[in-house]
Amino acid sequence: MKKTFASDNYSGVHPEVMEALLRANTAHAGSYGADEYTDRAIAKFKEYLGNDIEVFFAYNGTGANVLGLSALTRSFNSIICSDLAHINVDESTAPEKFLGSKLITIPTKDGKIYPHEIQNKIQRVDDQHHPQAKVISISQSTEYGTVYTIDEVKAISEVAKKNNLFLHMDGSRIANAAASLSKDFASFTRDAGVDVLSFGGTKNGMMFGEAIVFFNPEPAQYFKYIRKQGMQLHSKMRFISAQFEALLSNDLWKRNASHSNRMAKLLEAELKSASVQITRPVDANGIFAMLPPEVIPALQQEHYFYVWDEKTSEVRLMCSFDTTEDEVKSFGNALRRLLK
Amino acid sequence: MKKTFASDNYSGVHPEVMEALLRANTAHAGSYGADEYTDRAIAKFKEYLGNDIEVFFAYNGTGANVLGLSALTRSFNSIICSDLAHINVDESTAPEKFLGSKLITIPTKDGKIYPHEIQNKIQRVDDQHHPQAKVISISQSTEYGTVYTIDEVKAISEVAKKNNLFLHMDGSRIANAAASLSKDFASFTRDAGVDVLSFGGTKNGMMFGEAIVFFNPEPAQYFKYIRKQGMQLHSKMRFISAQFEALLSNDLWKRNASHSNRMAKLLEAELKSASVQITRPVDANGIFAMLPPEVIPALQQEHYFYVWDEKTSEVRLMCSFDTTEDEVKSFGNALRRLLK
Amino acid sequence: MKKTFASDNYSGVHPEVMEALLRANTAHAGSYGADEYTDRAIAKFKEYLGNDIEVFFAYNGTGANVLGLSALTRSFNSIICSDLAHINVDESTAPEKFLGSKLITIPTKDGKIYPHEIQNKIQRVDDQHHPQAKVISISQSTEYGTVYTIDEVKAISEVAKKNNLFLHMDGSRIANAAASLSKDFASFTRDAGVDVLSFGGTKNGMMFGEAIVFFNPEPAQYFKYIRKQGMQLHSKMRFISAQFEALLSNDLWKRNASHSNRMAKLLEAELKSASVQITRPVDANGIFAMLPPEVIPALQQEHYFYVWDEKTSEVRLMCSFDTTEDEVKSFGNALRRLLK
Amino acid sequence: MKKTFASDNYSGVHPEVMEALLRANTAHAGSYGADEYTDRAIAKFKEYLGNDIEVFFAYNGTGANVLGLSALTRSFNSIICSDLAHINVDESTAPEKFLGSKLITIPTKDGKIYPHEIQNKIQRVDDQHHPQAKVISISQSTEYGTVYTIDEVKAISEVAKKNNLFLHMDGSRIANAAASLSKDFASFTRDAGVDVLSFGGTKNGMMFGEAIVFFNPEPAQYFKYIRKQGMQLHSKMRFISAQFEALLSNDLWKRNASHSNRMAKLLEAELKSASVQITRPVDANGIFAMLPPEVIPALQQEHYFYVWDEKTSEVRLMCSFDTTEDEVKSFGNALRRLLK
Repeated sequence: MKKTFASDNYSGVHPEVMEALLRANTAHAGSYGADEYTDRAIAKFKEYLGNDIEVFFAYNGTGANVLGLSALTRSFNSIICSDLAHINVDESTAPEKFLGSKLITIPTKDGKIYPHEIQNKIQRVDDQHHPQAKVISISQSTEYGTVYTIDEVKAISEVAKKNNLFLHMDGSRIANAAASLSKDFASFTRDAGVDVLSFGGTKNGMMFGEAIVFFNPEPAQYFKYIRKQGMQLHSKMRFISAQFEALLSNDLWKRNASHSNRMAKLLEAELKSASVQITRPVDANGIFAMLPPEVIPALQQEHYFYVWDEKTSEVRLMCSFDTTEDEVKSFGNALRRLLK
Repeated sequence: MKKTFASDNYSGVHPEVMEALLRANTAHAGSYGADEYTDRAIAKFKEYLGNDIEVFFAYNGTGANVLGLSALTRSFNSIICSDLAHINVDESTAPEKFLGSKLITIPTKDGKIYPHEIQNKIQRVDDQHHPQAKVISISQSTEYGTVYTIDEVKAISEVAKKNNLFLHMDGSRIANAAASLSKDFASFTRDAGVDVLSFGGTKNGMMFGEAIVFFNPEPAQYFKYIRKQGMQLHSKMRFISAQFEALLSNDLWKRNASHSNRMAKLLEAELKSASVQITRPVDANGIFAMLPPEVIPALQQEHYFYVWDEKTSEVRLMCSFDTTEDEVKSFGNALRRLLK
Repeated sequence: MKKTFASDNYSGVHPEVMEALLRANTAHAGSYGADEYTDRAIAKFKEYLGNDIEVFFAYNGTGANVLGLSALTRSFNSIICSDLAHINVDESTAPEKFLGSKLITIPTKDGKIYPHEIQNKIQRVDDQHHPQAKVISISQSTEYGTVYTIDEVKAISEVAKKNNLFLHMDGSRIANAAASLSKDFASFTRDAGVDVLSFGGTKNGMMFGEAIVFFNPEPAQYFKYIRKQGMQLHSKMRFISAQFEALLSNDLWKRNASHSNRMAKLLEAELKSASVQITRPVDANGIFAMLPPEVIPALQQEHYFYVWDEKTSEVRLMCSFDTTEDEVKSFGNALRRLLK
Repeated sequence: MKKTFASDNYSGVHPEVMEALLRANTAHAGSYGADEYTDRAIAKFKEYLGNDIEVFFAYNGTGANVLGLSALTRSFNSIICSDLAHINVDESTAPEKFLGSKLITIPTKDGKIYPHEIQNKIQRVDDQHHPQAKVISISQSTEYGTVYTIDEVKAISEVAKKNNLFLHMDGSRIANAAASLSKDFASFTRDAGVDVLSFGGTKNGMMFGEAIVFFNPEPAQYFKYIRKQGMQLHSKMRFISAQFEALLSNDLWKRNASHSNRMAKLLEAELKSASVQITRPVDANGIFAMLPPEVIPALQQEHYFYVWDEKTSEVRLMCSFDTTEDEVKSFGNALRRLLK
């Protein structure tokens, strides 16, 4: 398939990750994580995020999110998130089914939720009839391609602490957030008060694999059981671990994320040059824009992308580690041609 | 790590599978299975198992089993299986958690369950107070390395049909069973009355990936939702599909399985030549044997393996697609040396 | 405790219901519903709602709602309801825990939801990533004390049918709705397209007990198992059944409901005469009104009631079968005195 | 229906309990347990079981058991019990559905489980693949009508403590056990190391209602949410509380239980005089015996009872608080007549 702006999961595996997979494919290795690749990958995570973290690998983002949240909640709890959160709209009812909990949602226009909105949703504390709020979950970068500043995360963490809640971060695109902020991972996660983090690999050039990082040791205590029960424990674990080791080595994560962010900026410029309205701030690797419905099908032929909202004709364009400048420009050219 | 007899998931990825992964890593592909690799892999499954099947890919064996069973049950149902079944003893409480159902177990010495035993466990039909049996689940090959004959599967299927139950097969080592029987997959699955099959890939040379095959279209109806909700839907699906395509091409599945089965037979001969008691019939790629406790640690140094039962000193030795004759012989030599 | 306007579950048991309990307390009766009292109570339901219904008794409203919905859904489904629905805000996370499903909520000012709002919430049909809408749940009378007209229910049922959804009615105060509409139960349930109904007993003078009524036989098929599994099957069932028989005999349900509705109207008049703003239409036995915060504590001493919204000082006043005119008037007098 | 030996839930409500219900039916009372009846009932429990307990009321035995166990477990845990335990065979799959946990069962001939058997079932501790044992659940009196001695409970508690497990007691017939032992409740519950107790009311003369008693404050912490979520919180709680107050006043619990136990002994004597084989020790209010199949139907006409095992013709005869000596004797006469 010709390259697309459909999603960063349309792209394949970064060559350095593929090489790591090939290198890991020798003889035998202990299963379920009892192997040297996993030791090394965890060491890499600790370099970035601190020696006292607990790290577990899982298959996919839904698994990482739902299981991480499971470690933080009991079934009578609720989780506060944006109405656009992946856990709310794109993970079927996995959160409800696995957690038994309710998601309490906040309408969002930029993908973010804000302290006062969150505080308003913490209701009926100690009331046995009502779901008891226990976690705030934010996505970084958000589903609208925006990025929380460090101060924004800290302010949310303060609400969490004040109300005895945990702060969970869905970081399926965390590398794009870090690259956008030009900050290290710790600055807007552990240092900003995050308790549990889904650290994404797949969308940044891995074949499969996500990590769940615990900055708070208590909820990590039983996580190995939760992961197994949650059907997210891989037997040939070395093949997830080797990928993460590669991603976290030689700044591969940053090179990939910076590139896709840069391509998004370039694409934004192309759209603007065609007088297309950009609908959300472009902080990371996604662009949301209003396109005239009549040009969409032809433009999708060029480089496929998704219509986000059929009613308003808002579209989403995602850049990936393998997006090229030529592709961005050819898309811009096609757009301008079609708009004439 | 030196090669082991620990488990077929200690082995890596077969080179032909790895090549398929490399070949699949070009440009973009539709996500979540909307790609040509998935189409081709499903077509391969249909070659073997019939055009009217439904096939879904998942990450691991626990996922394949639990989700397949989920399609067959409601939470007030029970599932009849051996007390040794992987779903009963090695999947944490994933079945209970995800299905809400009870496993009704039959003690087994050879890994199999038999029609009269099953019939005895179908109790209190229509009694609202009691779990209602709905599925018989068998493993092929079994956790004790034995293989059901076609007639044995058919006899179980008759019990299922007579009692309005479904027949589920955990085929995490289905290739070893097929190689052992010298029969094609259909003969002891669809033709023998199996409704849903977990078709294993990982233990036969894949990096990750299992398939759920429905011979009965009705329970497949909502399976796409069950898979997503069950956190087993891969975004970059082509990388599971390409592996299955390779495994089902050029008889790779059969070469791998026949080889590991043959290594098991060779290892059995080595053990017998050392007058070691073999405790279960060796039909597939696993050998169970009684070893004197005092030789085990030194022998594990040679080629690692698991003690199955600390009390009786029964051990399990698994052969894999990458087990070599030399390894088997060196193990036999070490055993004989230590037993002196 | 002095009589209150707190809730219709602060009241006790109607004398005719208590007499029925006493009458039922003779010798032995079959357990779990195999008794003549249950037969007669079900016959009463059929008189009102048709011979082809299925009726099951449960302990409480949460049980009736959650189990009824369980019969209509699979865990990947969603249920559309008002954001004020009892199932959404007053049943802890029982729906999420037991069903595994998501509630999709519509903001409401009068307790009702409307066809176009519902249609807007039926999104991403057939999309495996998204909860699949399967049920519309409405409360009759609503949590704001309003009552759907027959035409309103029918219009919602049309949306349900057009989209292949079920229509569920939480009728914990169904008698108040029927009395308000001056219609029989069938007119706004079975005849208006309701599939499953929670028929309330406790709030209309019973000691305990609710009924789940199926107008659609298919989802009733396995309900006996769902009820038992849901921990809502009473052993000494005759004591629920005898109460329902009494409630549905000699128009007791109607006398009770008409009375509490009339008391609500009287109370509304008292409030209006004190120039208090009534905030929701008074269709049934509840009144919502804005009271100056400074008068509330003293007024609660008189006849206790709940503040619905601390921020706006909106209060809820519920009338019950045992509310007297004198109580209403004394409350009105106290209010006027305090407002001076 | 003529009195039976079918079950203690075939009997009705004891007159003193009914009087308490009538007395409680005055004016208004706070809902959900915020009432004086509940305060007094809890005080009664504390008289018997200690001031530092936590007590919660629920509707039925399945609810009390499942919710009590829920407070002690996480879903990756297992619960060790007899294969005859009510939670294992008579509560549908409520435990699996609500807890997500597995029941690990021990075959029993007398209804009891013993320390060495329990210890053998605590397997694979810390192994992420295997359910982690967390609770031992015993029934007192057992489903076979036997009663654990204080020393037997203490010995089980020692196994629990040694292995860091909780001890749960299903006391749906706890009064019969206490009467049989001639001991107070505390002696074989809190003093013997029980952590959580289901304290039965219904089978000892109540209309509905069971209690969950926590001797260990930690698992009680969130129980109010678990109960509500578990659909076991009654709105008009005073009507459960008043019954418990009556049952625990004036030794009513003991009079009822002693009587039904004594009737069982009398019935045992009648059976023995007819040379019928008694199959389980008669410690409480149930008798198990072998009856010739040909006499059963005629005997059931006399006083109905259940055949426990169709294959062996073992029957169960339950005595209740309302069983009379005349009924026992007339049953004995009928038996002797039919056996001739």
